[in-house]
Amino acid sequence: MQISKQTPSQQIEKIYDVLVIGGGAAGLSAGIYLQRYLLSTLVIDKGKARSLWMQELHNYLGLPPNTPGRDVLKQGKEHYLSLAGDYLNAYVEEVMDEGETFAVRVRIGRSHPTAVVFRSRYLIAASGIIDHLPKLDDMQNVFDYAGHNLHVCLICDGYEMRDQRAGVFGSSESSLEVAFSLGWFTPHITLFTNGEFAVGAAFRDRLTAQSYTLVEQPIARFLGENHQMTGVELADSSVVELDTGLVSMGSKYHADYLKNIDLEYQGGNLITDNMNRTSHPRIFAVGDLKLGMNQVVIAAADGALAATQIWRDIRRSEGARRSPISSSVA
Amino acid sequence: MQISKQTPSQQIEKIYDVLVIGGGAAGLSAGIYLQRYLLSTLVIDKGKARSLWMQELHNYLGLPPNTPGRDVLKQGKEHYLSLAGDYLNAYVEEVMDEGETFAVRVRIGRSHPTAVVFRSRYLIAASGIIDHLPKLDDMQNVFDYAGHNLHVCLICDGYEMRDQRAGVFGSSESSLEVAFSLGWFTPHITLFTNGEFAVGAAFRDRLTAQSYTLVEQPIARFLGENHQMTGVELADSSVVELDTGLVSMGSKYHADYLKNIDLEYQGGNLITDNMNRTSHPRIFAVGDLKLGMNQVVIAAADGALAATQIWRDIRRSEGARRSPISSSVA
Repeated sequence: MQISKQTPSQQIEKIYDVLVIGGGAAGLSAGIYLQRYLLSTLVIDKGKARSLWMQELHNYLGLPPNTPGRDVLKQGKEHYLSLAGDYLNAYVEEVMDEGETFAVRVRIGRSHPTAVVFRSRYLIAASGIIDHLPKLDDMQNVFDYAGHNLHVCLICDGYEMRDQRAGVFGSSESSLEVAFSLGWFTPHITLFTNGEFAVGAAFRDRLTAQSYTLVEQPIARFLGENHQMTGVELADSSVVELDTGLVSMGSKYHADYLKNIDLEYQGGNLITDNMNRTSHPRIFAVGDLKLGMNQVVIAAADGALAATQIWRDIRRSEGARRSPISSSVA
Repeated sequence: MQISKQTPSQQIEKIYDVLVIGGGAAGLSAGIYLQRYLLSTLVIDKGKARSLWMQELHNYLGLPPNTPGRDVLKQGKEHYLSLAGDYLNAYVEEVMDEGETFAVRVRIGRSHPTAVVFRSRYLIAASGIIDHLPKLDDMQNVFDYAGHNLHVCLICDGYEMRDQRAGVFGSSESSLEVAFSLGWFTPHITLFTNGEFAVGAAFRDRLTAQSYTLVEQPIARFLGENHQMTGVELADSSVVELDTGLVSMGSKYHADYLKNIDLEYQGGNLITDNMNRTSHPRIFAVGDLKLGMNQVVIAAADGALAATQIWRDIRRSEGARRSPISSSVA
């Protein structure tokens, strides 16, 4: 059930089998599998899952190719709640490993936040990432187009950009490398540094070889209407007309709450085994936070894998039968 | 487009980037990703995907928990065709490795079959498995309940079987091991050998310890109506009442067409790397045919991974830009 600040004390005192941090595609899929394994689960979501930005999910088997990301999450949350899973809107501040259990301190509410501690035997880190966007004075101007035709994922949206005039917005020379892969879909590419970093001679030569344009002026604003970006106005008021854009500025990894636990990372991504177990035997990582491709369908599969492995672990340690009380959920 | 016996010769003479054998969840997901990578794809399906048996898919993120498997495949096929992928109903007889390409001999049509050879640079084996079912004189009696409340997948349907009187139908002592995992969901378990194999004393002791019942008589028929199995009638006309059943008799692996290619297997499953590449650099395996969990959402993710790796391979070998002709599809 949806729980809140007025959470009954039995939720707070209970030790969940699994606490899932993040209610995006990976976390909800894990929650659905876990509840179906008769494991008690709490999904904690802070809102703003990356997939909420997706206006159209084009490559998820079984759903029409223009399904908004939020529809998938809405269906997934309903599905999870229908299986009697607990769900809380809150921000996870810190996870403490107590040996047999984890203590997870969360902050509920914005204006008058309450700190509450939940406990579980296993943890699934499903809190994902969020893309850095170009930093303009008016960020609303960026939000107007991000997730519409200002994309953040070449694999997801390269097809939509084919043969279009595409802008690539980077935060470093290496982040602009994506332009050469985008070249698979369109030859009409302009790269933007927003005046924030320098580009070396060797890189310029490669751009010239592909007939790509490099713009090093600061960006004043994106142009367009109805969430369709049509170009960029630069600091000197000149305009670069575009049909589409790709932001490649790295991501923020939502894993600060794990800072006191020693885990193996590659860059910001958690390293996991083929069932999505991290280097800690009772912590799993799924979706964009773990090393691998950032795709909704892969996140959903990740959740299934982690949940199944946790079920196997618990089943083997407890023996064949869950107690009738636990198995009577839903 | 849907192609057929009257296939235009350009389809037959063309070398596809990828031939996908099997139009189930894994193959269609691969096809969708491949077409969106502007790679030319032919999906060959013989019909009877395992997921067509699924009356209700309960654990696929984004779809209501009673979605029939056939709805997912129908949506997936429409999606794939909308991206200008080629699709053929045919049976794949043999794959020959010609070095740069594969030659794939297929049989089209049932009554007056035609043999046709298609060629591709890469191959995705997505032809899956099909569960062995109890062999009764009247197989229609088995088909009436299989996929309804006579299940084949504990992970998928254990939750539906909770606290029910469940029959477990095996083909060997080891295949009956699943009863102990089913014990997580229900204590009311009867195991059936159908009179086909012997069970040892140690195994009997384990059944006794769990209060499970072992029935060693041949099965005459399943009882029930409207696809809801209500029990089993045995050879001596006695009846065992049941609410649900789980078949655990192994599977047929649909990979005969690969027999002349040297690949690494574990049991019947192809061994793959984390992008689903087999031990052959241009053959990928996805879904139930590869080693791993047999779940629709995992099959769909498998297709995404294999397609992406093939795109990376081809992009790196061809350079940045697909020819305008290829990229003008759809």
